[in-house]
Amino acid sequence: MIMSMNQLGVVKRNIVRADKAAVEKLSRFGVATVHEAMGRVGLMKPYMRPVYPGARLCGTAVTIFLQPGDNWMMHVAAEQLQPGDVAVAACTTDNFDGFFGDLLATSFQARGARGLIIDGGVRDIDELEKMRFPVFSRAIHAKGTIKATLGSVNIPVVCAGALVNPGDVVIADTDGVVVVPAAMARQVADAAERRESLEGEKRAKFAAGVLGLDLYNMREPLEKAGLRYID
Amino acid sequence: MIMSMNQLGVVKRNIVRADKAAVEKLSRFGVATVHEAMGRVGLMKPYMRPVYPGARLCGTAVTIFLQPGDNWMMHVAAEQLQPGDVAVAACTTDNFDGFFGDLLATSFQARGARGLIIDGGVRDIDELEKMRFPVFSRAIHAKGTIKATLGSVNIPVVCAGALVNPGDVVIADTDGVVVVPAAMARQVADAAERRESLEGEKRAKFAAGVLGLDLYNMREPLEKAGLRYID
Amino acid sequence: MIMSMNQLGVVKRNIVRADKAAVEKLSRFGVATVHEAMGRVGLMKPYMRPVYPGARLCGTAVTIFLQPGDNWMMHVAAEQLQPGDVAVAACTTDNFDGFFGDLLATSFQARGARGLIIDGGVRDIDELEKMRFPVFSRAIHAKGTIKATLGSVNIPVVCAGALVNPGDVVIADTDGVVVVPAAMARQVADAAERRESLEGEKRAKFAAGVLGLDLYNMREPLEKAGLRYID
Amino acid sequence: MIMSMNQLGVVKRNIVRADKAAVEKLSRFGVATVHEAMGRVGLMKPYMRPVYPGARLCGTAVTIFLQPGDNWMMHVAAEQLQPGDVAVAACTTDNFDGFFGDLLATSFQARGARGLIIDGGVRDIDELEKMRFPVFSRAIHAKGTIKATLGSVNIPVVCAGALVNPGDVVIADTDGVVVVPAAMARQVADAAERRESLEGEKRAKFAAGVLGLDLYNMREPLEKAGLRYID
Amino acid sequence: MIMSMNQLGVVKRNIVRADKAAVEKLSRFGVATVHEAMGRVGLMKPYMRPVYPGARLCGTAVTIFLQPGDNWMMHVAAEQLQPGDVAVAACTTDNFDGFFGDLLATSFQARGARGLIIDGGVRDIDELEKMRFPVFSRAIHAKGTIKATLGSVNIPVVCAGALVNPGDVVIADTDGVVVVPAAMARQVADAAERRESLEGEKRAKFAAGVLGLDLYNMREPLEKAGLRYID
Amino acid sequence: MIMSMNQLGVVKRNIVRADKAAVEKLSRFGVATVHEAMGRVGLMKPYMRPVYPGARLCGTAVTIFLQPGDNWMMHVAAEQLQPGDVAVAACTTDNFDGFFGDLLATSFQARGARGLIIDGGVRDIDELEKMRFPVFSRAIHAKGTIKATLGSVNIPVVCAGALVNPGDVVIADTDGVVVVPAAMARQVADAAERRESLEGEKRAKFAAGVLGLDLYNMREPLEKAGLRYID
Repeated sequence: MIMSMNQLGVVKRNIVRADKAAVEKLSRFGVATVHEAMGRVGLMKPYMRPVYPGARLCGTAVTIFLQPGDNWMMHVAAEQLQPGDVAVAACTTDNFDGFFGDLLATSFQARGARGLIIDGGVRDIDELEKMRFPVFSRAIHAKGTIKATLGSVNIPVVCAGALVNPGDVVIADTDGVVVVPAAMARQVADAAERRESLEGEKRAKFAAGVLGLDLYNMREPLEKAGLRYID
Repeated sequence: MIMSMNQLGVVKRNIVRADKAAVEKLSRFGVATVHEAMGRVGLMKPYMRPVYPGARLCGTAVTIFLQPGDNWMMHVAAEQLQPGDVAVAACTTDNFDGFFGDLLATSFQARGARGLIIDGGVRDIDELEKMRFPVFSRAIHAKGTIKATLGSVNIPVVCAGALVNPGDVVIADTDGVVVVPAAMARQVADAAERRESLEGEKRAKFAAGVLGLDLYNMREPLEKAGLRYID
Repeated sequence: MIMSMNQLGVVKRNIVRADKAAVEKLSRFGVATVHEAMGRVGLMKPYMRPVYPGARLCGTAVTIFLQPGDNWMMHVAAEQLQPGDVAVAACTTDNFDGFFGDLLATSFQARGARGLIIDGGVRDIDELEKMRFPVFSRAIHAKGTIKATLGSVNIPVVCAGALVNPGDVVIADTDGVVVVPAAMARQVADAAERRESLEGEKRAKFAAGVLGLDLYNMREPLEKAGLRYID
Repeated sequence: MIMSMNQLGVVKRNIVRADKAAVEKLSRFGVATVHEAMGRVGLMKPYMRPVYPGARLCGTAVTIFLQPGDNWMMHVAAEQLQPGDVAVAACTTDNFDGFFGDLLATSFQARGARGLIIDGGVRDIDELEKMRFPVFSRAIHAKGTIKATLGSVNIPVVCAGALVNPGDVVIADTDGVVVVPAAMARQVADAAERRESLEGEKRAKFAAGVLGLDLYNMREPLEKAGLRYID
Repeated sequence: MIMSMNQLGVVKRNIVRADKAAVEKLSRFGVATVHEAMGRVGLMKPYMRPVYPGARLCGTAVTIFLQPGDNWMMHVAAEQLQPGDVAVAACTTDNFDGFFGDLLATSFQARGARGLIIDGGVRDIDELEKMRFPVFSRAIHAKGTIKATLGSVNIPVVCAGALVNPGDVVIADTDGVVVVPAAMARQVADAAERRESLEGEKRAKFAAGVLGLDLYNMREPLEKAGLRYID
Repeated sequence: MIMSMNQLGVVKRNIVRADKAAVEKLSRFGVATVHEAMGRVGLMKPYMRPVYPGARLCGTAVTIFLQPGDNWMMHVAAEQLQPGDVAVAACTTDNFDGFFGDLLATSFQARGARGLIIDGGVRDIDELEKMRFPVFSRAIHAKGTIKATLGSVNIPVVCAGALVNPGDVVIADTDGVVVVPAAMARQVADAAERRESLEGEKRAKFAAGVLGLDLYNMREPLEKAGLRYID
């Protein structure tokens, strides 16, 4: 999804990346925590899964808009990647081809990129795991691609249902992928920190046998809502 | 998908709708033509289908951001609908419940709305067809919803993979659903008109037996690409 | 789904069908209304769709438990069908074969059956439409079946996610399929009648331009929940 | 799926079409009947559906092997179509783009083609219905395609799970799509005729109330298999 | 799926759990063996998968009936969990939100629960693996839920296509999830034991090169069925 | 998919297996490399996944054509397996039952088979992993099967969208499954070897920071295609 026909065949070179300190702070939290800290928004669809166990990443988005069966723009995007970036690739239509493999991963890693989020397929999974180059995708597929049609780099894209602007923070782990708008990175990192410290206290109480019914004072609202206990 | 945690629980009253004349002009063209005129962007996912045969619509978007199993915001949105509008509903998560039926359709129609686009389920399909209130959805499901949690009205939403801003033009027919940004409505309508007149000429030639190979001068590039004819 | 290994290879002849008057009364209401009248329970999954436009049915369930690719039990079930019954077929595993076609439909119709609900595939769709024998299925598939393995007839089955006991009322229309337990048929029919008369009043108000916000007194709870209007 | 790397970028001009009389005879039977007459083989996957109600076709296959998002080969194929042919298009990978619309349909129809079977998307559905040009596809999608990469025409293809050789007979109706190898067309047409006359007799017996249990002598084998009747 | 509108908003406190010794005996066998021992019934749909490798569980069901996007009943259910129980959660409609994470897991584990089966989404997967709290779900999704609407606890539910009554035995491993009705637990455990000892003998024979054709005396029935060997 | 009604109920004993040396050479390369070496054809659909991490195989195909819910032909096929073979199983219809488990794996392994490719379900996953018997399937499902209906062994089958002839080379790893026609095995192995040595050089250059834009001389064609860089 792009917002104007003027955005096809375009590479934007200067993008405003989220504040580095905020990105590093966000990298300490999991996707579920960040998503809650944002007000329960910003998640990609749950079909986005890590291609190997234990993959996780946090960095600033360089966005890529692909044509089906064509990974030309991946090479164009490589030049725009800076240390700390994460490539985020969307496609003009649903397509599961293997747009990305170990050669491109070597190139991206040499540029300092921290990983790839792609609403499409990837291949060379074993090599990606050996390289520890984290990728989250909707499919694994050995199908190769051509280099024939223009897409774009660093335009706003909708990837797996989430809007991603270049420079936004992208965080991914076993629970999924979440996008934090660049301008909100610091605020969300602070909210995540507060949430995590609260969770620690709650966890201790739950472990000691306290029930959520009492911890959250739910008994009265449940009764009001009409909950009946029977034997 | 919303872009900030400040956008939950919000109703924006004053939105900038696309130019009326441009909307009317766009209403003369099909979704495929408009999508081509925009440069092949702006389509929703193909799982969005009309709930009855022959449904089609064109109007300006009033956007609705729903919580799963909850249609409270539909009623909030009704008040924001003006003649010529189309309600466009997204949800914070994948959910196929029946968020909309004939009562809400009666209310929307009384407000002058031209139809509904919803990335979720609807019901009372027979009544909707009798009322000629066009709906495009991802599911038909009789499952009812509650009215308990806040979403938003008239914020930017991602609906079935397409970004929709309030006031954008939404066009839907048997081929799918396309979104035209408000600021581009006139330009796209003109491009669609040019495209359609060209198509008329081509259609006549095809009907007369001219081949695309000749009409588009493809024989030479095909040969260069290496196409071989064998017997 | 069956509850005991003693239930494979069994045909139960005497089943308690829902009260006839209640069934006839229920046949006047749509699936969405009946589902609401039951307290929003009893729906099958939304993948169950009519095989031709306008199909609808209401009757008492004769249940069939099939093996994949095998429709032997369909013939066993035919003998158990009485006028006013609806055949409801589940399968031991996900299977989309064409278990049912125009010959079996002729036999079922001759027995007085009112239609078929099947969590599998059917074929001969054009003939079924000509015969006006309503079928709701998860797939249309010409693939034929064999007659080699025992299932059961008139045991409790889970069909498309809903539990169906022999004799229960099954109602299906464009909005889906709903199951009413036999013992509740009268009570649900009465509740549906009340609901429908209330809906008539509401529809008139909506048509006159009254908003749901006012009709349901939602403005205050929305404000309490924190809804903000901005310009 | 193609069988050799030598088959990319190839157009075979002289293909052996199935016997005309056999094709005409086959056109009198439905897909389910033909599939049974072949020994229950040759069906495409059930996701292949007509794009408008009542579509049906029977003809000899001209096969097309497409690249994702690219319909160049459609134009190459047009020249190979002869009166009585059906275009059968497969793709090197799963892709739902709109490879085909009313302009190509006009060209195909002018060549005498009887329709299209495509394991991909199509668009301009309303126009296709008006033209009465039958199409069976896995998706409806307005997404346009480019003309940049070679596929092939008239090589063996696997379309929606079924192997199709150029010249084979393809029959499609509401029940799905079936492929009859050219060399077997006459034999299958005869078997279909025998089967249909038998079905007529059976239908009359079923309509008169005879049970399949008796018509097919199933009571004894059912008893031997262990079927128990309980009250 | 529940059987009556009286079952919404209900918590049943006293449930009859399957015999402890039978549960422990069942815990020694895999899902495939138990499913066979029951007569090939009782399996959940294959979309139910462990959220981390090596997860397995066996225990008595405490059932939970959830509303979409709402995990209030999880907290109500925690109080009903006893050592040896497994929480089994169904939802009134298809929903993939993350109803359950590490805090609730801590609470459930503190109550002595052995794991969770949920026809919906879960999150905090890495923490669940570290805690060794086994969960089988249809999705992994970081999407949070609210606590606003009543469901029920300890009513019969249909979870992923299988009927589960409170107190039934639930067994899950890499092969899937199976439900054993409480009253049949002992009988099924004995049948599983017999089956497993037979399997050991067969395994040794297969390893020694004996063919199933001979071990099961299949050559004659295959010949009778018409199997032909050609060269 | 089979090509003639004469091919049901048939076991072909003498099949021409691909050249041994070519098979061994092919076993050194990954699926993505082999697929590219063939000209980007021969892949199965991406839903085919290894049932345990690290599974990979390469061998000559013995094909099996199954009926839904029936694994009789698995036992017939066992006798046809020779050291170095891979069993490749297709089904007459979509079916996810567990056709294969540890007993059959023991038998296949005793015959010298190198693994199984199946367009259906399997079970006993933990045991398969312990045995290191690699299986690639579309589903994991504990559902057992019967032995009642004839399929075939060593006829051409379409498995997960790819045509497999008996004796073809099948290679599977984390990236998917690819089929190399027996007659092309040597040629493809040589092409794969050339491709892999080229990839090594490219990998070194990418690791050193060379961009694909320069390595592949893409800057000029991108400019010609109209790519614009903006700031």
